[in-house]
Amino acid sequence: MQPSIPRGLRDVLPLEAADRRALAERCRGTFESWGYGQISTPSFEYFDLLALEAGEEISREMFRFVDSDGRLVALRPEMTTPIARAVAQRMQSERLPLRLFYVEKVFREQPARLGEQREFEQAGVELLGARGPAADMEVVALAAEMLSGAGLAEFQIGIGHVGVFRILLEQLGADTKHRRAAEELATARNLVGLGRLLEQISPEARNSVGAAVNARGGPEAIETLRAIVEEGEGRRLLDEMAETYRLLEAYGLSGKVMLDFGIIRNFDYYTGLVLEAYTPGLGAPIATGGRYDDLLAEFGAAMPAAGFAAGLERLHLAIAKQGAKEPAPEAALLVGWEAEPTAALRVAKQIRAAGRAASVTLEPVGVDRLRQGPREELGQQAGPGPEQGRGRRRQRVAAALFVTSEGRLILVGPEEERPVAGVAELLKELETE
Amino acid sequence: MQPSIPRGLRDVLPLEAADRRALAERCRGTFESWGYGQISTPSFEYFDLLALEAGEEISREMFRFVDSDGRLVALRPEMTTPIARAVAQRMQSERLPLRLFYVEKVFREQPARLGEQREFEQAGVELLGARGPAADMEVVALAAEMLSGAGLAEFQIGIGHVGVFRILLEQLGADTKHRRAAEELATARNLVGLGRLLEQISPEARNSVGAAVNARGGPEAIETLRAIVEEGEGRRLLDEMAETYRLLEAYGLSGKVMLDFGIIRNFDYYTGLVLEAYTPGLGAPIATGGRYDDLLAEFGAAMPAAGFAAGLERLHLAIAKQGAKEPAPEAALLVGWEAEPTAALRVAKQIRAAGRAASVTLEPVGVDRLRQGPREELGQQAGPGPEQGRGRRRQRVAAALFVTSEGRLILVGPEEERPVAGVAELLKELETE
Repeated sequence: MQPSIPRGLRDVLPLEAADRRALAERCRGTFESWGYGQISTPSFEYFDLLALEAGEEISREMFRFVDSDGRLVALRPEMTTPIARAVAQRMQSERLPLRLFYVEKVFREQPARLGEQREFEQAGVELLGARGPAADMEVVALAAEMLSGAGLAEFQIGIGHVGVFRILLEQLGADTKHRRAAEELATARNLVGLGRLLEQISPEARNSVGAAVNARGGPEAIETLRAIVEEGEGRRLLDEMAETYRLLEAYGLSGKVMLDFGIIRNFDYYTGLVLEAYTPGLGAPIATGGRYDDLLAEFGAAMPAAGFAAGLERLHLAIAKQGAKEPAPEAALLVGWEAEPTAALRVAKQIRAAGRAASVTLEPVGVDRLRQGPREELGQQAGPGPEQGRGRRRQRVAAALFVTSEGRLILVGPEEERPVAGVAELLKELETE
Repeated sequence: MQPSIPRGLRDVLPLEAADRRALAERCRGTFESWGYGQISTPSFEYFDLLALEAGEEISREMFRFVDSDGRLVALRPEMTTPIARAVAQRMQSERLPLRLFYVEKVFREQPARLGEQREFEQAGVELLGARGPAADMEVVALAAEMLSGAGLAEFQIGIGHVGVFRILLEQLGADTKHRRAAEELATARNLVGLGRLLEQISPEARNSVGAAVNARGGPEAIETLRAIVEEGEGRRLLDEMAETYRLLEAYGLSGKVMLDFGIIRNFDYYTGLVLEAYTPGLGAPIATGGRYDDLLAEFGAAMPAAGFAAGLERLHLAIAKQGAKEPAPEAALLVGWEAEPTAALRVAKQIRAAGRAASVTLEPVGVDRLRQGPREELGQQAGPGPEQGRGRRRQRVAAALFVTSEGRLILVGPEEERPVAGVAELLKELETE
């Protein structure tokens, strides 16, 4: 049988896997330093529950199947709804706010022509049971710190507000149908289409919304909105947004965070602040999120909440593009033997106990073969990652070790070999090389 | 909507998630110390490929669905076939042997009455491109070191040989149908059924196979088999098995590894040594594996291979049962503020930069509320894990910190509060507490 996998899926081979794990660890480190605890949920759940507030597009993109109980289930397309469900189901009695993070696989069915991944890994957080500028600021600042902490030097986080957008549309006389259509066009950044749609309501609607979705930058963007949005709830939300931005500035993030009222996200559940992080050279956002104050109520556990998610493949790619390279993982010391492996096995055990990796050859080898072998032996673990096509990295292999049947150690370098008194001496020699 | 998930699936809440991550890290550490590199494959693949050598039972247990290209795919029920496929597809040109490990989710549809998990996490290895006693020994020894390294004190690994079992059945005149039936009965440890089946062939068949599947212990078990198995390939395999066991003894594992020719595994792809690890108080094996020398040839990349997988949920449970407890993760320092959070946010940033976790309150709090709050604040992150029902663990929360608008720090203990000069002093105080 031809070995192949369905499109939009991929294997992650060892060198890339090591990079990806290091990346995930850095994200975790940042989340934990803000007091967030990890949560994991099942890869598939009831379709109806996942689709509840996901919006039409995401609902269409779910992989669905019927389980042996005859229930329609789906691979999760994102983590916010499953975590909201888990909190409502199992953590309602916990003290609020809840700070949760995840590093999980999500799945989206995609038409073949788009050439997109259908399974990808997301790292993100949910902050549940809190609202207001301090909570919004925490989510945005944590997104920024996760990205910097991951090693991404250049990025920009835009923050908008779907609540203000909805209030503005209402104020301008848009009905629910128009509002939905406008949100979809705004999400797709289709400003021409958005203009045409609003023209149907009134020229003022077109002008006001046009000015709103183009308002971006510092506090002046809020002033633009204040001039368009009427007194009342909309203005109150703008005041909160101004305070959120002020706190972000005070935290030292004015260079990384920008107000952008053109940002509208395509999950139905967003109600307030929304965010998108971009990095040069990558068209799609590297992280997205927002506030979803009504989602938990759907599960009988009304509480405000906000969060974000970043795609780890994309983040890895962006970091590699910006030139930051993971150091290649240190390869295992290759331990060879000729007549009988017992002594070599014992030496390898001691090397491992000392905290260093060792592999014993699985057949007899002479010193000669060992001399040619070691520098390539673990090159096996190279694999095309984001750096594919730019020359494969190889693991660093320092040297090899030959162990005689009597247990004598011979360190085998590329040009010469020399005896070593014991494992302690060996490790010292390898340190200094 | 009632928040619920399909049976056989579960959420992993923060304290358990932290334990599980620590456990997975220890497994990874052991794998890497033996020179293994991580591999990850897609959660679903073509059904036909996954079913190729999985055996009838596992094939029945796969979650199947049709993707948007009209292809029948399935959630992977195990990792050996996907990794064999990935090696054939993408790593054929790499130098052998290949040492690969994984920590991945796998999926099995189960009848409701069994009450079993339908998604679980496996940690395991595949050693590809090598055969013989040194290779077999490496797989078994690594399984033992992974289990000890994970913190499991009491366990026993049994090793058998499906190749010897098949040769014996052939020698006794069993046809393919009988052989398959016998393997299934042996896998299920249904010795009465096995005896009845073999009786149909001959009383000698019943007696010989009965003696073989009951042969266990040290080298004497091999002598038992040698007396039953005829000269030829079967005897050669027994010699190899004796050498494998000798190497395991020499490595210091005679107390952990036992020969057991009654072990037969229910994947069709096994061809040689098979292993099962058991731990007291857990009926099902905690790790299983074996040699599958013919699987890669199915993908046009003939090479010998062997590996094992351990279930992380089960391993976590077994470690908890044996009394080893993860230390509860250190909770974040709670930082409160009253008038305005800017100063508190800056202090939290400094605390994080110093490598300690901090959460800022998301609304104004007085010192009084902070004094009552901190010890419980992060109790939120407790969750039922394997220790469910034996009292929840809580995160340790040392103290809370109040930051005045002018940036003065007040350390708030359960009974008293005292000013601290700065973040450096604060961290020193917390260290010594």
